Amino acid sequence: MSYTAPLKDMLFNIEHLAGIDQVASIPGFEDAGLETAQAVLEECAKLNEGVIAPLNWEGDKNPSSWKDGVVTTTPGFKDAFKQYAEGGWQGLQHPVDFGGQGLPKTIGAACTEILNSANMSFALCPLLTDGAIEALLTAGSDELKAIYLEKLVSGQWTGTMNLTEPQAGSDLSLVRTRAEPQPDGSYKVFGTKIFITYGEHDMAENIVHLVLARVQGAPEGVKGISLFVVPKFLVNGDGSLGARNDVHCVSIEHKMGIKASPTAVLQFGDHGGAVGYLVGQENRGLEYMFIMMNAARYAVGVQGIAVAERAYQKAVQYAKDRVQSRPVDGSINASAAIIHHPDVKRMLMTMRAYTEGCRAMASVAAAAYDAAHHHPDADTRKQNAAFYEFMVPLVKGYSTEMSLEVTSLGVQVHGGMGFIEETGAAQYYRDAKILTIYEGTTAIQANDLVGRKTARDGGQTAKGIAAQVEQTEAALRASGSDTAAVVAKRLQAARLAFIDVVDFVAGNTKASPNAVFAGSVPYLMLAGNLVAGWQLGRALLVAQDQLAQGQDEAFMRSKIATARFYADHLLSKAPGLRDSIVDGADSVNALAPEAF
Amino acid sequence: MSYTAPLKDMLFNIEHLAGIDQVASIPGFEDAGLETAQAVLEECAKLNEGVIAPLNWEGDKNPSSWKDGVVTTTPGFKDAFKQYAEGGWQGLQHPVDFGGQGLPKTIGAACTEILNSANMSFALCPLLTDGAIEALLTAGSDELKAIYLEKLVSGQWTGTMNLTEPQAGSDLSLVRTRAEPQPDGSYKVFGTKIFITYGEHDMAENIVHLVLARVQGAPEGVKGISLFVVPKFLVNGDGSLGARNDVHCVSIEHKMGIKASPTAVLQFGDHGGAVGYLVGQENRGLEYMFIMMNAARYAVGVQGIAVAERAYQKAVQYAKDRVQSRPVDGSINASAAIIHHPDVKRMLMTMRAYTEGCRAMASVAAAAYDAAHHHPDADTRKQNAAFYEFMVPLVKGYSTEMSLEVTSLGVQVHGGMGFIEETGAAQYYRDAKILTIYEGTTAIQANDLVGRKTARDGGQTAKGIAAQVEQTEAALRASGSDTAAVVAKRLQAARLAFIDVVDFVAGNTKASPNAVFAGSVPYLMLAGNLVAGWQLGRALLVAQDQLAQGQDEAFMRSKIATARFYADHLLSKAPGLRDSIVDGADSVNALAPEAF
Repeated sequence: MSYTAPLKDMLFNIEHLAGIDQVASIPGFEDAGLETAQAVLEECAKLNEGVIAPLNWEGDKNPSSWKDGVVTTTPGFKDAFKQYAEGGWQGLQHPVDFGGQGLPKTIGAACTEILNSANMSFALCPLLTDGAIEALLTAGSDELKAIYLEKLVSGQWTGTMNLTEPQAGSDLSLVRTRAEPQPDGSYKVFGTKIFITYGEHDMAENIVHLVLARVQGAPEGVKGISLFVVPKFLVNGDGSLGARNDVHCVSIEHKMGIKASPTAVLQFGDHGGAVGYLVGQENRGLEYMFIMMNAARYAVGVQGIAVAERAYQKAVQYAKDRVQSRPVDGSINASAAIIHHPDVKRMLMTMRAYTEGCRAMASVAAAAYDAAHHHPDADTRKQNAAFYEFMVPLVKGYSTEMSLEVTSLGVQVHGGMGFIEETGAAQYYRDAKILTIYEGTTAIQANDLVGRKTARDGGQTAKGIAAQVEQTEAALRASGSDTAAVVAKRLQAARLAFIDVVDFVAGNTKASPNAVFAGSVPYLMLAGNLVAGWQLGRALLVAQDQLAQGQDEAFMRSKIATARFYADHLLSKAPGLRDSIVDGADSVNALAPEAF
Repeated sequence: MSYTAPLKDMLFNIEHLAGIDQVASIPGFEDAGLETAQAVLEECAKLNEGVIAPLNWEGDKNPSSWKDGVVTTTPGFKDAFKQYAEGGWQGLQHPVDFGGQGLPKTIGAACTEILNSANMSFALCPLLTDGAIEALLTAGSDELKAIYLEKLVSGQWTGTMNLTEPQAGSDLSLVRTRAEPQPDGSYKVFGTKIFITYGEHDMAENIVHLVLARVQGAPEGVKGISLFVVPKFLVNGDGSLGARNDVHCVSIEHKMGIKASPTAVLQFGDHGGAVGYLVGQENRGLEYMFIMMNAARYAVGVQGIAVAERAYQKAVQYAKDRVQSRPVDGSINASAAIIHHPDVKRMLMTMRAYTEGCRAMASVAAAAYDAAHHHPDADTRKQNAAFYEFMVPLVKGYSTEMSLEVTSLGVQVHGGMGFIEETGAAQYYRDAKILTIYEGTTAIQANDLVGRKTARDGGQTAKGIAAQVEQTEAALRASGSDTAAVVAKRLQAARLAFIDVVDFVAGNTKASPNAVFAGSVPYLMLAGNLVAGWQLGRALLVAQDQLAQGQDEAFMRSKIATARFYADHLLSKAPGLRDSIVDGADSVNALAPEAF
């Protein structure tokens, strides 16, 4: 169950698709060129392959456990997290001012993938801490920043996001946790939060909970929600830890996957009130939360790519080792490794094409994020922000949905052995299923894509992307290779399908919301499919050039074959999706609830 | 987690699609008309809903356990199996001569679904016993039949299928278990078998193992494999149980799902040799095994439908109960049950359409089985046999693959709660994953579809089915309703895609096997999709007629809506599959094994 980080593919994307040179031309990122990327990724691979990956299966066998309010993580996790923190990995993308490395997301996202391939359960702790850091950077007062940020960035403390309550999941307007203002400017927080990832654990000295709650007298609904910092231990003026706060873990969940990651039920204020500190202004909590959620959503998309990569590597290994049946073409006159069988190749190529396609998409989105946040030119920032915002639901939704298919194929390649837990393939299948659910289900991502990302600007951003795809088609045709022409043909068909759907969505969201939202998830899948296929089309062009220059023949030929496979087998789904979206809304909505 | 057998849908299929009247016109089935079907299904539902279904989640929590060679099943299983046997359910489809009820598969298949919806792990014991009965009926000597059949049919003893060995899974030519002839005509069997479902348990007095092994000196490969009966306890002349045979369970597997079903490693002959009795003739074992495997494959397909139905019912219940967010169309001015949200409806309709489509396909296939085996006219038998044989890989492959998607959607509808084991939705997701693997993986089904079912007759049977689909299209158009016309349009597109692929398969299997087998699973998915959609098209016609006659309006309207949904959202995938099969083989086979 070893893991090898796909550095070559990552660096190919970072160099040729994301354009690290352009990122490094942004002030502040001068040192973040290809060489840095390579050095960082190699160090990252070392720690994760050697220390964190071996704990993945261990965490499945020996999950986090709860006793009397104390959560004990899987043996080895605490020490591994210490190494992770000491290596400076928690601060990789965070500001130098607070002890971070200040690297661009273009590099950081690849590190996030490596960590999550190594151990998704483990990786959730840093992922949530990133979210807490993001929230404090965005909206925290200077005082809060001074108290909390450095400790979070160093990995000495960890962070959580406390949104969900039993009655409030996707619908945060139903949040009931309440905060009472105190004379000293702090608040007392009362309520129950569920599904809190790493809400309690033994890997850090303190846990900084970011909590959504209502201040007394706040308006009903989402406009009355505020964001609070509620630390597990109060912090003294000198930064040392003070009294235990009134937030307690009353249980952790028994889950299908990511078992090592403790999912806590947290009780706030059962003994007089948990001390909390307002982040930003009252009643703007959801707005701040969305900022950190966007970062977390992108990261969850990367988790999908990560678990897909791990499942792929495992399946390839098994397919090369397992000997069974003669090849159908008679090329070997004896039982052969199953990788010689066309259907096994088809499964492996499907896993590979999805994973590489989504990785390319995520890498390009990361570069847009960097430009959107740090480019000196306002127009460039705006343009990149629109692109990145469009990408977030695709990276989150498409990459996680594809990870379900990929991890299922991973089990399938193993045959009966795949169903035996000790083999390890089943863990990826079980772990992956959370990804389409947390940080907003695929439907929530699709609502975002339809409402905020497509209908709001009348489909402009979407059409802009389609125009870029068209340019890639032209370049593919101009390149003169048959393979490129095939990919161009499939890209074109997918793009035309996409445009039809964008017109449908932009034109009908207000007038016929039921019709549009009936096709929202298929729209997301079509858009994600197109963008991932487009990036592989770009990759094919690069690979053709590199081949012509005699660069890394084996890698470039594989990239071309993978792009072609993606076009033939995955992009070819796009026109069917268009049909079901544009023609299929009536049948989604035909039955009344009582007819089910 | 209650379960209600979908009797109305089952009886609709049995009456209108499978044509129970025609089945009941076959000599021997005179009493097996619609009334009998209804009475049997109602009794079946009673036992399963009341006794067997409540043990499903229990079996997941408290799986079968092994200690010192003894397997103890989940508390309650032994008593439930006693009730199952005493009710005569094991013998439902087996000959009256051996104590069975002699009912047609058209009725029996519905009972198989009910049992598997109630409890897939439990149902595997009867399923394997059915296989053992089938093998003995097909090839057993009169003596073997006399000793074993009645006890198996009554459920007093149970049966197993012993095929797999560590090195021999899909490739049975690699079987090494050996059988040494003894002077008294029996054999001594030596070897290790793995993945033996209910290979050891405490629910019956004796276990009758059907074992593939090689007689000394037999030819290499599949032509040297024979089939043996190896009972757990030897049977005395008077039918009483004698000495313990030398077959022992050395461990059971730790699996992702169907945990209550013990999956045994059996050791034969470690203490001098397990006594075995040859079934039929030496070296024809695989042929006999294929007969029982065909029955088992059909049954596993029904398991897919069963677990999909159970997941659907659970998801519907949750979607009606869980209140979250306002409907997008503003029809309710408050948070509403999530079944009001279009994407939840889309998910539920997808689950329902797949399940009803596959159920209809399986029901029609069952009627063909009955005619193929029992119709007095030889031509009719032959025609139905060809149809049934074509259906087996579709029922097995398509119904189980769809069950992965349906059980995944089942979890998804539950949101975060779906990932918590106590909710129960995750169990269906974990259980279902074995279905695309055992009794021949989807790829093995697809090989069968390509080789024996399509290429062998030059696509004749396939084209015959396409011609029948075309007739349904014509009838849909002639019916005059808009909905029927839409379904006809999608059916036509899917049928034309299917014909292209059949031509591709029939024309290239010999000359370009790698190209054809690269698309074998997509071909299976396309064929299954078409046939299930076709049956729902037929169902729509019936429902329109019934509506016109004022019959059961709610049910008939739902059937029409489901058929329409199937056409819009699932049949619409067919043309894309054609493209990836016919154009996509090169990219499947492009990379050499070392490039992975």
